[in-house]
Amino acid sequence: MKAARFYDHHDIRIEQVPAPKPDAEHVLVDVVWAGICGTDLHEYLIGPKAIPTKDNPHLLTGDHLPVTLGHEFCGYVAHVPEAAVDASGAPLRTGQPVMVDPRLNCRSCYACHGGDSHLCGKWGFLGLHGAGGGGFSETCAVLPSMCYSLPEDTPLEHAVLIEPLAVGRHALVKSGLALDEFKSKSVLVLGGGPVGFAVLCNLAAIGVQKAFVSEPAKARQDLVKIYADQVLDPTKHNVPDECRASTDGRGVDVVFDCARIPPAMKDGFDALRPKGVYVNVAGWEVDFIIPMEYLMPKEITIRSTLAYDDKDFGDTVKDFIAGKYKGVERMITARISLDDLVQEGFDQLVAKKDVHSKIIATPKAGQI
Amino acid sequence: MKAARFYDHHDIRIEQVPAPKPDAEHVLVDVVWAGICGTDLHEYLIGPKAIPTKDNPHLLTGDHLPVTLGHEFCGYVAHVPEAAVDASGAPLRTGQPVMVDPRLNCRSCYACHGGDSHLCGKWGFLGLHGAGGGGFSETCAVLPSMCYSLPEDTPLEHAVLIEPLAVGRHALVKSGLALDEFKSKSVLVLGGGPVGFAVLCNLAAIGVQKAFVSEPAKARQDLVKIYADQVLDPTKHNVPDECRASTDGRGVDVVFDCARIPPAMKDGFDALRPKGVYVNVAGWEVDFIIPMEYLMPKEITIRSTLAYDDKDFGDTVKDFIAGKYKGVERMITARISLDDLVQEGFDQLVAKKDVHSKIIATPKAGQI
Repeated sequence: MKAARFYDHHDIRIEQVPAPKPDAEHVLVDVVWAGICGTDLHEYLIGPKAIPTKDNPHLLTGDHLPVTLGHEFCGYVAHVPEAAVDASGAPLRTGQPVMVDPRLNCRSCYACHGGDSHLCGKWGFLGLHGAGGGGFSETCAVLPSMCYSLPEDTPLEHAVLIEPLAVGRHALVKSGLALDEFKSKSVLVLGGGPVGFAVLCNLAAIGVQKAFVSEPAKARQDLVKIYADQVLDPTKHNVPDECRASTDGRGVDVVFDCARIPPAMKDGFDALRPKGVYVNVAGWEVDFIIPMEYLMPKEITIRSTLAYDDKDFGDTVKDFIAGKYKGVERMITARISLDDLVQEGFDQLVAKKDVHSKIIATPKAGQI
Repeated sequence: MKAARFYDHHDIRIEQVPAPKPDAEHVLVDVVWAGICGTDLHEYLIGPKAIPTKDNPHLLTGDHLPVTLGHEFCGYVAHVPEAAVDASGAPLRTGQPVMVDPRLNCRSCYACHGGDSHLCGKWGFLGLHGAGGGGFSETCAVLPSMCYSLPEDTPLEHAVLIEPLAVGRHALVKSGLALDEFKSKSVLVLGGGPVGFAVLCNLAAIGVQKAFVSEPAKARQDLVKIYADQVLDPTKHNVPDECRASTDGRGVDVVFDCARIPPAMKDGFDALRPKGVYVNVAGWEVDFIIPMEYLMPKEITIRSTLAYDDKDFGDTVKDFIAGKYKGVERMITARISLDDLVQEGFDQLVAKKDVHSKIIATPKAGQI
């Protein structure tokens, strides 16, 4: 079958690999859509970073590059082990549309047993760390418990966004506030890229009291504006002052950093009210130097977030099926063929990074 | 009267100044003991930093240097305005021993009204920011509501430690855990200086399940060892490994950073269990660069703490009076005369910084 495999930075190859064989443990999922994540792009530009190498094979899978990419994906069930049930305990059947939770974990350590499988010391992802392939291929082998059944009429090109939406939802949960509390909270989201979009879409689904976004790129501003009370261009506005002006001079309750750009971070700490919460959702490319002039005098809490856990992924699926993520399809800025993944996907995300949000790819003919 | 006044770094002068006059708003406190705080030392070495200058007078008091130093102090009431009551509402009388909460704040802003007077946008301290003098003098003018009455037989040389103890208590409260929860928690304290001592003394008063201290100086190790299950010398031990070895391999629940030394910070983040809490109690001399390799994979929460609030100060006084801070007198490593404040106080804290913890000074003859 066809698969996009990572060999090195700027070296992703669409090539023929053996298709996974039916076995007694795995569901085979025929992929319909898979999205390119910021992590994939990061690997393409300066990897291998998260992707294991021969000298440092993955702790859980033992695999190393070349690996099939793609951890945001959904499709149809092609093979079901006997009596297999999905994440919610429902029987799986051939032809069932499913969204995949791509996480790998040992299910035996303290974190896994405590409901924090995302913090497993051996965590990984299908589509980055081997073991069963990834979403940028025709077929992927997945544990039944990681499959979430979707209604027959689900538009799969939107369902693939459940994965980034789960990242956004987890960030909200990790703020330490109950989700309902956001109804009376003001929030500043730094960055209107796909992660910022997912955070905002979740906030809108709850009905946040007030949402500000700081995003310099016009195209991304347009994508997220349906979710924001105020879209601020940090190159033109004084973001903290604008936030204070709309919050009785106090500042916002919560900041979600989906950018990790030093001036934006400073804006975020400045914009927070005393005892506010700064949630780090962004990756680790830039050193995280805390602006001390705000940290202590405001007794700010910093929280960090990694991917999502079982509950947040499951809840995101439910809310997606219930139609709560209105406008989420705006996140998709291009639909491409798996054959064109490098030139029309990765290279476009570099060349037109301010225009694109999420690019999704399909191995199926006739989907685009 | 005699007072120690700050003019510039390395320029603190013991000089004669007019004594505060009795008025209808202030209690006059004849100081018996006052302690040197790390902030005072910081000002002595590289100030003025927190101390206001002529060009930048204090927002609340309008005062600027020279200012009388000393914000950790207690003594006897020398004058009481008519019908004045102390912080707990008890009538004040001449001769009453009192501990002073030295904080200044506007009592009219959002933070002050919300019980967070320590986060007042115009916060300050007697003994740093003017308005009534400070503890390194013979007499200080204080608002009645900032006086905490002490029993007649209170040893004032120990009561003066209530202020640093309140800093320690506030750090515990700001961890986000209820104080009782520490009975089942493991804790690593970075730094065994006076702030680390105060944190440990509070943890011991609650009955923390397990306390580790990382402190390289032998004399400070000896001072805090009564409160610790394990005192670790980071130059000899692998602190994170030792913590894991005594916590079933998980790591500690909470780290209190009372050192802000980059290698110690790294140890702290490494030693934390997944979802652990890192409490920043230290000041801001060194850039706070977050070790990202631990922050996200463990979803660590960072909390920050500034001084103390009304409740924490009051609760510390109560627990001190109740005798809960056993061994707290060990924090005092020298008792000196106010006349010798510079040579025997500040200069000794520099020359023998690994030996000293808290140095207290008195303007009274016959106290030492």
